[in-house]
Amino acid sequence: MLLYGYWRSLATCRVRIALNLKGVAFEETPIDLIKGEQHAASYRALNPQAVVPSLVVDDDAPLFQSMAILEYLEEKYPQPALLPVDPRGRARVRGLAQIIVSDTHPLIVPRVREYLEKGLGLDEPKRMAWIRNWMMKGLEAVEAQLLRDTETVRFCHGTAPTFADICLFSQVCGAQLFGFELSSVPTVMRVFAECIKLEAFDRGQPLKQPGAPAKIQH
Amino acid sequence: MLLYGYWRSLATCRVRIALNLKGVAFEETPIDLIKGEQHAASYRALNPQAVVPSLVVDDDAPLFQSMAILEYLEEKYPQPALLPVDPRGRARVRGLAQIIVSDTHPLIVPRVREYLEKGLGLDEPKRMAWIRNWMMKGLEAVEAQLLRDTETVRFCHGTAPTFADICLFSQVCGAQLFGFELSSVPTVMRVFAECIKLEAFDRGQPLKQPGAPAKIQH
Repeated sequence: MLLYGYWRSLATCRVRIALNLKGVAFEETPIDLIKGEQHAASYRALNPQAVVPSLVVDDDAPLFQSMAILEYLEEKYPQPALLPVDPRGRARVRGLAQIIVSDTHPLIVPRVREYLEKGLGLDEPKRMAWIRNWMMKGLEAVEAQLLRDTETVRFCHGTAPTFADICLFSQVCGAQLFGFELSSVPTVMRVFAECIKLEAFDRGQPLKQPGAPAKIQH
Repeated sequence: MLLYGYWRSLATCRVRIALNLKGVAFEETPIDLIKGEQHAASYRALNPQAVVPSLVVDDDAPLFQSMAILEYLEEKYPQPALLPVDPRGRARVRGLAQIIVSDTHPLIVPRVREYLEKGLGLDEPKRMAWIRNWMMKGLEAVEAQLLRDTETVRFCHGTAPTFADICLFSQVCGAQLFGFELSSVPTVMRVFAECIKLEAFDRGQPLKQPGAPAKIQH
C-alpha cells in the first residue's frame, strides 16, 4: 500500500495509526501542503479534491477521506477490531470520531487558515484565536461525552483502542503542535496518555514523521 | 424513534432521508438552533455537544453525529442497502459522503456563522462569500470525483441511492437555501434531480419540514 500524506496532517495521522494497529505494511509519500503540492495536476489525478490522505491499494483508484479509509481497513483487516461488535457501541465510537473529524479538524486545516489570512486579512492573534476556539470546542465536546458515558474505560470505548481513540489522539497531537493548554479536557488527556503508550500510536504521531521539525515550533 | 432536529439543519436532513428510505417510523422534535435551544441544559443532557441531530432509540442514550447514525441504521435495517456490498465501493461512497460531511458542511453551520459575525465582526457580504466559497469548494470536489469515476451512474454510485446521495442532496438543499448559482456542478445537480424524484428525499428536504418558511428567503 502507498499512503500519500504529510507529516503534520492529522487526517493522515489517523490512517497511519490504523495501518499500524492492523499491522498492514505501507509506504508513505509526502505531499507538502504548505508548498501546495496537493494542487499539482499529478496529485489531483489521484485525489480530485486535492487533499491528503490518499491510500493506493493494489494499483487501483486511490481511496480518499480518512474515515472512509478507516472503515475500509476495518472491513478488509478485521483484526484487531477498531470498532465494537454491537451496533449501539459502533454508533458511539463513530459519533465520537465524527465530533473530531467533522466538527473540529476541518475548521483548522491549512486551506481554512489560508482563507483567514489571505481572504479575510486576519492577523496572527485572530487566526490563533480561531484555531484555539474550534480545537477546544471539539475536544471539550468529546470530554463531555466521555465523562457522561459508562462505556469510557481505559480508552474511549472499553479497554481496547477504536476509531474514536485514533481521532482523539490525532486532534490532541494537533493541539499540542499549536501549543494549546489542555487542562480543561482531563479525560481526553488521560485517554491520549493511554494511546501514546502503544507503539502503533507513538510511531504514527506527526513529530515522528520524516520532514517534521526536531521539536514543536509554536 | 425520536429525532431531535431542525428544519434547516442539513445533518438532520440526512438522518431524516435515511429513515425515510429504510421505511423506519419516527417522530421529530424541533430544536431551534437560531434561538439557541441546543444550549438548554435539558438538550445538553441528551447531546453533550449541543448540536443536532440526536436520535433516541428504545429510550436508550441518544445516538449522535449524522454519519454515525446512518451507519447504525444501515446495520440495524440492512434493506434497502445504502452502501454497496464491496469494500472498495463502500469506501468510495463513504469518501464522497465525507467530502460533504467533514470538509464542507461544518464550515457553514450556525455556530461558525455566529463566530464570523460576532467574534470577527465580518459584514454580511464577507460572511456570504465565506459560505459560498466552502459550499462550492465542497460541491466542486464531489463533482470532480463523480466526473472521473465510472461508478457514477444514475446516482453517485450505481443505480440506487447511497449515503453519498443523501449527503450530496442535503448540501445542495443548503446551497439553494443560500441562493447560490450551481451551474458549475452539473453532475451533482443531475444526481440531485434523480434524488428529489424519490419521495423519501423529497419529503425529507428542509423546506418541507414544520417551521420552514413557505419559500426560500435569501
